[in-house]
Amino acid sequence: MAHLMSTSCSIKISSSYRPCGQPRNQDRTMLPNSFTIKTSKSPFKRLISKGHRAGRSCVVLATAAPVSKEVSANPRSGSDRSPNDSSKPQRVMVIGGDGYCGWATALHLSNKGYEVAIVDSLVRRLFDHQLGLDSLTPISSIHNRLRCWKAITGKTIELYIGDICDFEFLSETFNSFEPDAVVHFGEQRSAPYSMIDRSRAVFTQKNNVIGTLNVLFAIKEFREECHLVKLGTMGEYGTPNIDIEEGYITISHNGRTDTLPYPKQASSFYHLSKVHDSNNIAFTCKAWGIRATDLNQGVVYGVKTDETSMHEQLCNRLDYDGVFGTALNRFCVQAAVGHPLTVYGKGGQTRGYLDIRDTVQCVELAIANPAKPGEFRVFNQFTEQFSVNELAALVTKAGQKLGLDVQTISVPNPRVEAEEHYYNAKHTKLIELGLKPHLLSDSLLDSLLNFAIEFKDRVDTKQIMPSVSWKKIGVKPQTVPAN
Amino acid sequence: MAHLMSTSCSIKISSSYRPCGQPRNQDRTMLPNSFTIKTSKSPFKRLISKGHRAGRSCVVLATAAPVSKEVSANPRSGSDRSPNDSSKPQRVMVIGGDGYCGWATALHLSNKGYEVAIVDSLVRRLFDHQLGLDSLTPISSIHNRLRCWKAITGKTIELYIGDICDFEFLSETFNSFEPDAVVHFGEQRSAPYSMIDRSRAVFTQKNNVIGTLNVLFAIKEFREECHLVKLGTMGEYGTPNIDIEEGYITISHNGRTDTLPYPKQASSFYHLSKVHDSNNIAFTCKAWGIRATDLNQGVVYGVKTDETSMHEQLCNRLDYDGVFGTALNRFCVQAAVGHPLTVYGKGGQTRGYLDIRDTVQCVELAIANPAKPGEFRVFNQFTEQFSVNELAALVTKAGQKLGLDVQTISVPNPRVEAEEHYYNAKHTKLIELGLKPHLLSDSLLDSLLNFAIEFKDRVDTKQIMPSVSWKKIGVKPQTVPAN
Repeated sequence: MAHLMSTSCSIKISSSYRPCGQPRNQDRTMLPNSFTIKTSKSPFKRLISKGHRAGRSCVVLATAAPVSKEVSANPRSGSDRSPNDSSKPQRVMVIGGDGYCGWATALHLSNKGYEVAIVDSLVRRLFDHQLGLDSLTPISSIHNRLRCWKAITGKTIELYIGDICDFEFLSETFNSFEPDAVVHFGEQRSAPYSMIDRSRAVFTQKNNVIGTLNVLFAIKEFREECHLVKLGTMGEYGTPNIDIEEGYITISHNGRTDTLPYPKQASSFYHLSKVHDSNNIAFTCKAWGIRATDLNQGVVYGVKTDETSMHEQLCNRLDYDGVFGTALNRFCVQAAVGHPLTVYGKGGQTRGYLDIRDTVQCVELAIANPAKPGEFRVFNQFTEQFSVNELAALVTKAGQKLGLDVQTISVPNPRVEAEEHYYNAKHTKLIELGLKPHLLSDSLLDSLLNFAIEFKDRVDTKQIMPSVSWKKIGVKPQTVPAN
Repeated sequence: MAHLMSTSCSIKISSSYRPCGQPRNQDRTMLPNSFTIKTSKSPFKRLISKGHRAGRSCVVLATAAPVSKEVSANPRSGSDRSPNDSSKPQRVMVIGGDGYCGWATALHLSNKGYEVAIVDSLVRRLFDHQLGLDSLTPISSIHNRLRCWKAITGKTIELYIGDICDFEFLSETFNSFEPDAVVHFGEQRSAPYSMIDRSRAVFTQKNNVIGTLNVLFAIKEFREECHLVKLGTMGEYGTPNIDIEEGYITISHNGRTDTLPYPKQASSFYHLSKVHDSNNIAFTCKAWGIRATDLNQGVVYGVKTDETSMHEQLCNRLDYDGVFGTALNRFCVQAAVGHPLTVYGKGGQTRGYLDIRDTVQCVELAIANPAKPGEFRVFNQFTEQFSVNELAALVTKAGQKLGLDVQTISVPNPRVEAEEHYYNAKHTKLIELGLKPHLLSDSLLDSLLNFAIEFKDRVDTKQIMPSVSWKKIGVKPQTVPAN
């Protein structure tokens, strides 16, 4: 069993944090902060059913003692959904709920009235330790995060710490929590990470593909009506010279016509792992009647959502390094510290982008409007297209407004990709479901830049340049020197 | 280290076998049959190069003392190729060379004058033990097979026993043997096996995908000019309602045109593993300049090739069971034992088929005409299309000629697949390279039926019916009862 089996612990909150329940800029008065992780024999008796090892529940439930009487009066804690609306999914498991998109999504869903459980091995934090990286923003432990959320909103998010590649663990989470929907962010999500060395390439494909297979088997075995919302990537499509459709394309060929899966041309072992997942999921929808939505997400930017802004202990991570950082976020941090914006190659690489506030909105829309049994539904989840050069120009302009001297340099492209190409990807299905996009505006860029400036003392400039080459990847394990 | 480290052993050949070097139907006189497996510190000094752990070679070289003076005069031992023709690949590694297609291919290539090494974990034999299955034909151990081949032809086939998912082992084989081409049959190759239970599904994808990733990394690291000839399957395409092309399709869409990978619709975890492989290989061709040929093979039938017919100890395996048996081979065995031919569902399922003599021919054509650096070449490797009903009718007719009473029954289809569909798959590229097909003829069917009749006493009729359901697969490990 790979999951945490601690029975209780107390965590001292760092004095640099305000206690939960207090608004920002208020005097820092320490409040009671004891915290208990429970591993109960059967903390949710009603949830242990079907004779699935009822006596061996491995749930790790994070609870927090209320720290303020203000909590229940917090206007943000209200639900937009009736808890008894049985026609809608109620219980959502967020796999990878401690990560960048997963954390924001878990809070958003909880705030909207869903019963939420986070399943996470916390391995993303280990990657940072191993590679000597850190989030621009200081992030709290998952336990403190959830305690804070409970204190502010009165809402409990359950926590299961373990590896979904361990099917015994995953089974326990399904039988304990009984999800109506599973949102699956729980994969190694960096293309450069997957290209560091052979062992990381193999890890990425094994971890992502087997984890998703396990989720599919768990749904089939334990919760056949459960809707899988799986995070894919726009990178699965590559850069074809024709319009990119949402998952499928109708092809006329030699006088006959069929609608077939859109051809995939992924360009890293990470992106390939998502293609493998998509193919596996599509098969199980057909063979087993699984209901699934594949969200082919573009590049996410931004850091704040309504929920993560409530308290600094709820703050999301922001990666600016060459391994986990994504284009626009990296550029803003580079501008903030006076580092030239690093355009890879010619900079004509065009992709779909979206604000993290739209990530959480899209996931909720997918959950609220589930796929039908047997349906493998694909949405392209982004709101606007930009080339890297366009992003650099936008950040330069926004930086100049703030008095920053923003330079741009072209660095040799560490990837193997077209640097000038046609790109036109459809993204209408989520709009049709009600998505109201937060388009990239001057105000968002100002906000993101100011955010980067606020934390610029935490930037390790050695992490900015790309360090992973698509062509030079070898079999020798790469380690990070201590200096 | 997973590979065999025995330093020597003697194997007693069963008295039911004629010793190697003697033709069939000759008096059985036992000849010296001692046999040595060598694990030398450095058996191939010239092959250990580049400082790759020269002192730790793990080669397991199967050699055999000549048992007959006739060997060198054997007319079949001549090479069709000049050993010094440096413009052609000389050294071919056959991964999975102990299996059905791999064994026939290894012998064929050896007979044609290539220097051949077999790399195999022998796990296919373990599957039989675990599932209580057996080949229709008695097959010798890989060590006896190679000793016999040496005795008959004078040719040595090197043997490396180990798991290619163990990269340390695979590295040793590459640095020891230094292949010019790698033929990769070394995967779990049964769709029903991959659908037995969760652990077999996961094993199939992990084993196949990671094994192939390791081969790609080994080529990049140690033998960048080496040509990868990878066995894919026609099953990767599924049954689209348009013509199936060879790997790529030109699509015109909204006024623009591109040639893209042909859309895949695989229908088992096994077939999906081959799709994952194809995508991974295509990426490494583009990113690293790997030269690769993907042979999307149809359903193989038959058992004899020129080489496996030379001696009964060279006899190939023939699977008739519901897990590893393929359609035509199974029907012939069913007819031989008086079991009704088992048509799944409506029987309109149409696929590409080929004679195993064409498998070995196609692989040699691919090796002799390698892909260019960076090229991901896809050939559809089959010679004729048949529906299951057409195969049943052919076997019924051929059986009646031999005086067999052949009945056909429709059994509930254990798979999830279209039972009536359009199917028209292109297969011209191997013909253009010189393939001379052995089309399915009455004489082949007669021969295969007679072969099945010869061994019919070895048939376990309990293994004939399908036992694996695509819909009923669960998470509980399936074991075979002892009765």
